[in-house]
Amino acid sequence: MTVVRPSGRAPDQLRPVRIERGFTRHAEGSVLVSFGDTRVLCTASIDNKVPAFLRGKGEGWVTAEYGMLPRSTHTRSEREAARGKQGGRTLEIQRLIGRALRACVDRGALGERTITLDCDVLQADGGTRTAAITGAYVALADAVRWLLARGEISRDPIHGAVAAISVGVYRGVPVLDLDYAEDSDCDTDMNVVMNDGGGFIELQGTAEGHAFRRDELDALLGLAERGIGQLLELQRQALAG
Amino acid sequence: MTVVRPSGRAPDQLRPVRIERGFTRHAEGSVLVSFGDTRVLCTASIDNKVPAFLRGKGEGWVTAEYGMLPRSTHTRSEREAARGKQGGRTLEIQRLIGRALRACVDRGALGERTITLDCDVLQADGGTRTAAITGAYVALADAVRWLLARGEISRDPIHGAVAAISVGVYRGVPVLDLDYAEDSDCDTDMNVVMNDGGGFIELQGTAEGHAFRRDELDALLGLAERGIGQLLELQRQALAG
Amino acid sequence: MTVVRPSGRAPDQLRPVRIERGFTRHAEGSVLVSFGDTRVLCTASIDNKVPAFLRGKGEGWVTAEYGMLPRSTHTRSEREAARGKQGGRTLEIQRLIGRALRACVDRGALGERTITLDCDVLQADGGTRTAAITGAYVALADAVRWLLARGEISRDPIHGAVAAISVGVYRGVPVLDLDYAEDSDCDTDMNVVMNDGGGFIELQGTAEGHAFRRDELDALLGLAERGIGQLLELQRQALAG
Amino acid sequence: MTVVRPSGRAPDQLRPVRIERGFTRHAEGSVLVSFGDTRVLCTASIDNKVPAFLRGKGEGWVTAEYGMLPRSTHTRSEREAARGKQGGRTLEIQRLIGRALRACVDRGALGERTITLDCDVLQADGGTRTAAITGAYVALADAVRWLLARGEISRDPIHGAVAAISVGVYRGVPVLDLDYAEDSDCDTDMNVVMNDGGGFIELQGTAEGHAFRRDELDALLGLAERGIGQLLELQRQALAG
Amino acid sequence: MTVVRPSGRAPDQLRPVRIERGFTRHAEGSVLVSFGDTRVLCTASIDNKVPAFLRGKGEGWVTAEYGMLPRSTHTRSEREAARGKQGGRTLEIQRLIGRALRACVDRGALGERTITLDCDVLQADGGTRTAAITGAYVALADAVRWLLARGEISRDPIHGAVAAISVGVYRGVPVLDLDYAEDSDCDTDMNVVMNDGGGFIELQGTAEGHAFRRDELDALLGLAERGIGQLLELQRQALAG
Amino acid sequence: MTVVRPSGRAPDQLRPVRIERGFTRHAEGSVLVSFGDTRVLCTASIDNKVPAFLRGKGEGWVTAEYGMLPRSTHTRSEREAARGKQGGRTLEIQRLIGRALRACVDRGALGERTITLDCDVLQADGGTRTAAITGAYVALADAVRWLLARGEISRDPIHGAVAAISVGVYRGVPVLDLDYAEDSDCDTDMNVVMNDGGGFIELQGTAEGHAFRRDELDALLGLAERGIGQLLELQRQALAG
Repeated sequence: MTVVRPSGRAPDQLRPVRIERGFTRHAEGSVLVSFGDTRVLCTASIDNKVPAFLRGKGEGWVTAEYGMLPRSTHTRSEREAARGKQGGRTLEIQRLIGRALRACVDRGALGERTITLDCDVLQADGGTRTAAITGAYVALADAVRWLLARGEISRDPIHGAVAAISVGVYRGVPVLDLDYAEDSDCDTDMNVVMNDGGGFIELQGTAEGHAFRRDELDALLGLAERGIGQLLELQRQALAG
Repeated sequence: MTVVRPSGRAPDQLRPVRIERGFTRHAEGSVLVSFGDTRVLCTASIDNKVPAFLRGKGEGWVTAEYGMLPRSTHTRSEREAARGKQGGRTLEIQRLIGRALRACVDRGALGERTITLDCDVLQADGGTRTAAITGAYVALADAVRWLLARGEISRDPIHGAVAAISVGVYRGVPVLDLDYAEDSDCDTDMNVVMNDGGGFIELQGTAEGHAFRRDELDALLGLAERGIGQLLELQRQALAG
Repeated sequence: MTVVRPSGRAPDQLRPVRIERGFTRHAEGSVLVSFGDTRVLCTASIDNKVPAFLRGKGEGWVTAEYGMLPRSTHTRSEREAARGKQGGRTLEIQRLIGRALRACVDRGALGERTITLDCDVLQADGGTRTAAITGAYVALADAVRWLLARGEISRDPIHGAVAAISVGVYRGVPVLDLDYAEDSDCDTDMNVVMNDGGGFIELQGTAEGHAFRRDELDALLGLAERGIGQLLELQRQALAG
Repeated sequence: MTVVRPSGRAPDQLRPVRIERGFTRHAEGSVLVSFGDTRVLCTASIDNKVPAFLRGKGEGWVTAEYGMLPRSTHTRSEREAARGKQGGRTLEIQRLIGRALRACVDRGALGERTITLDCDVLQADGGTRTAAITGAYVALADAVRWLLARGEISRDPIHGAVAAISVGVYRGVPVLDLDYAEDSDCDTDMNVVMNDGGGFIELQGTAEGHAFRRDELDALLGLAERGIGQLLELQRQALAG
Repeated sequence: MTVVRPSGRAPDQLRPVRIERGFTRHAEGSVLVSFGDTRVLCTASIDNKVPAFLRGKGEGWVTAEYGMLPRSTHTRSEREAARGKQGGRTLEIQRLIGRALRACVDRGALGERTITLDCDVLQADGGTRTAAITGAYVALADAVRWLLARGEISRDPIHGAVAAISVGVYRGVPVLDLDYAEDSDCDTDMNVVMNDGGGFIELQGTAEGHAFRRDELDALLGLAERGIGQLLELQRQALAG
Repeated sequence: MTVVRPSGRAPDQLRPVRIERGFTRHAEGSVLVSFGDTRVLCTASIDNKVPAFLRGKGEGWVTAEYGMLPRSTHTRSEREAARGKQGGRTLEIQRLIGRALRACVDRGALGERTITLDCDVLQADGGTRTAAITGAYVALADAVRWLLARGEISRDPIHGAVAAISVGVYRGVPVLDLDYAEDSDCDTDMNVVMNDGGGFIELQGTAEGHAFRRDELDALLGLAERGIGQLLELQRQALAG
């Protein structure tokens, strides 16, 4: 069974992915990640404090915040700061990013400091949360290098890389890395976060329309594993650059 | 490999589940659902309006809200109404419940009305979101019967039952229906929502600690399928009662 | 002058009152109180801290919060947590409950701890604030027993019982314990809180329609005194159970 | 039994009361009322709209808002607009003022318009809510005269005057019109709102310390009746002026 | 070129200005300032604390808050405390007042205390922010005298007086001290804050309609210099009184 | 008198200015403007609605919103969406941007539509508001071209270009286009908005430290006029590109 994707990509083909380090200069890590037309600015900020529940435990914290610029989307969305609160989708995504990155950090080795990953979408074309996780990992790695370079920590607290991709069933065919056109016309989609040991960190599958069968699930997981392998390689290249 | 669960249950054993219909009298559907010591009051309220984005389209809407009474938990949590906002976890859960139940409803057959499912946790002992989905389905079914009985709709808009359960890896062993003691001491857990056609509606797996392998995932899905089968049967019995 | 009450009760007759202790298991005191169809869950939570204005004074604090589940009422009310603030009626009621219970506690004997009474209405049929006060007293008594049993305090800080009832002029006749049908069709109503020494703690009378005369006031107070006497006896029985 | 009041007043003596009409010029009614050092600016504003629940019913609405300037009090209080919400005390008082004034208005004769009474405390020395009600009545009367003078309504919708006073037990003696020094050192106080037919509109008695007996209540009500008689006379003089 | 101002004033004529000290009694400084029909109550409150960013630096702080009573304006404005936030205009004005007054204070000589200037508009007729600055200066001076009189500080931290006025181009003619009628019908207006050394502290000119030329700007500044000279003299007289 | 600016620039020298059109693709106008290291993304979004106060008047509206990404600054600032409100500085700046751009638009020619200019600071190094105005003008021009190209309007509603720059007295010397290092170490600064007819649209001068004399003001205005001339030329080149 074949399908023509709106972008002309093969079912198992990622969009062109770019990872630019040092996009802005104040943050300890600053990465502009692009998955096709989706562009997310991910900065890592180090603060020598931890949240109240961790004080005095000798452990650090990694957390994330997510936002979309009002006109990153096809039609302008209301600015959350003006509305006076972050929406449920925003909170859900930033909780996901935070959990994903904590899963690759030894918080004892980080010491009593917090690294905040701000993921701000400059342009949205589907898959902003997976681009954000993939880019935020690189920003986090840069912030950790900054700490190591200054001797503030002596051991690298990152014990593995993390990347994320979306998969979905588009017109009956499992496809990798949905763009907006596919996402809007797709009953089932799943966001998958994995580490470079091949382990699953997060799996969030949703079928608003047609429920997915176990064999579809298996096909989607297979696509995600391959796509994440490529993203992990691109992260390695970017960090070697 | 064996493990002794804190409750003494077998790995594939649900807690005692109770579904009491008509728990309060004003709502069109009102169900008190218990998964062991977790007790959630699920009410279904019908309103002859739809949100702005659906007006004039001849379709209905199903949505959910979730809350925990301040002392439903081991230690008192701050009341969200007093704090002035709902937390990220609350918003995430109520979005999940809403999506899960919309997945079993033909919104055209419902007509231009909204059914709101309020899921309020009276007592929490793990698995409140899965209990909420399982109970809210029954409350929804009662609200639909109320509409059918009054002739407000002529065709049942529910095209399948929906139930949910949690699974997780507890001390290395995949287990079904985590209670609070297991949940707190468990690296990996997954909430699974399925329909009575065996399709997956939602899958949310999280590994804050150790990432899970593909074979663990398969084992967890198998447990979930069996547990949800039992829940669907209990829903049928409750609705037949 | 006679009147037929919607419920068929005599003018000086309470609705059936039930006080169930231990309704939920985490709270130090947990009482489900019913005045007819009005059902309020009252929990007492102990916290070893006091508000800032009392710190270091060796005194404790007793406070209350009140809420209604969205569908505890005839038509669904918006969830206050979703609206982002508690309404004026809610704040007024929880301030009343707090004052009423502080009036029976020796805060020095309580020591530097706070007892919070959460009164959540599961089903409303008039008189929720008076049911809440009556039930919260029992939950408070249970929490105090919990402290005494563990030796955390050595002397009972409660120096008297507290109960509350509503009275009003319904179709020209003073009646006791208004239900929703009466409340909606009644010009004058008054909530009365008394202790078991026969003293008045709070008196809140309101005449939105016809102003009440001094002789009506006297009749209402007489009814309230008798009703509260019965409630105090029911509290004693519950606590003896 | 005698007591020396901090102000040297007799137990049944009001503070000097002043009612200045036309204090500001934009409002349809604008009154500066003083009960001794308590000064409240009460304005009445007419709007040709009614709240949603009254639309199309041919009835008007009367409502109130209350505020204290930050330094109307002995020590500066935080500005509620800066905190982002009105406190429970504020909401409680403005609800009370609104109910008190609605009790003297025939809302049908008012027609579909809203009169809002803004009561802003310029200087506080106890009894701000009773001064506010007493002054707001005069502002309301002026606004109604404004409507009558322009022929917007043909019949006076006010069917009686309303005034309010506080009473309390100060060092064992019932006294009238508590000032701040008495209020802070007083176990029991009651706010009484009456109309000029001798009827009670609101009665709010609170005993945070010692509960009050029926005979104390009777003495307090007697004092309030006499004090309100004097206030009603002062209102008449002001409106005749 | 001549113009008839709505008030009949000459182009360079201020409205009648009154500065009443001691308008309320609790605040350390309390001034009712009137610029014609614009009346603003300015109170200065001393607090022996400083904001977090100044703690331990031996310096004081001067800050301002601004508000309008709901019916200080021609038509009633919504109460900001009820809306739950201060508007942009309010924040802008209170920031301006705070900066203006900090510009005349030696914060080291003030010591670690905060003086808060609350400027509340009782009646608005244009120029509320300039009246507020002019009056707040006098309230500040009174609060400083209070500190000096009690020996809490030994040296006067005020190193110069501050006053403010508006100027604008009304029907082609530069005029001083715009009232509401002029302000509404005027393309260009500028608020000018100066000290008694002839220096400019703030200059805020806005041309919503026609942009102003350099020669118009010069004329406006000349008017402002003369008007502020008169205001500074009125402040001196008030403080000498 | 000479001074060495931290950047080595001459007193009347702008930083390198870049104006990139089409930076993102969804908005009708999208400009990345850089004043040295200050980078602001300005998008113009067209909406076929106007605010309530303009409905039915045949006029359009131009408005602006401003935000800073949390780590656009040297140290991370709290996200305003997470805090739940926009700060006073943000509101002040976005009001300024809106006024500045409305000053160059014939709102009748625009018709009943709103153009919203979102100015989001990606990297801050002083002068974000002046960069925002300068860039937003170009985004606005692009949005107007978009309307003209589709025939939605027939006449260009822009009647002049608008640009803005800051000037200040740095170590006694008037300088143009302050960067962050200068801004932090500068007593007096002024933001100037002008149109291409040489008229002033906004002038906001602030002296937190030393008040500025008339001759300093004149020098600052002269610098601003020259700097804005260059910015207007760069805007022309960008729009011709």
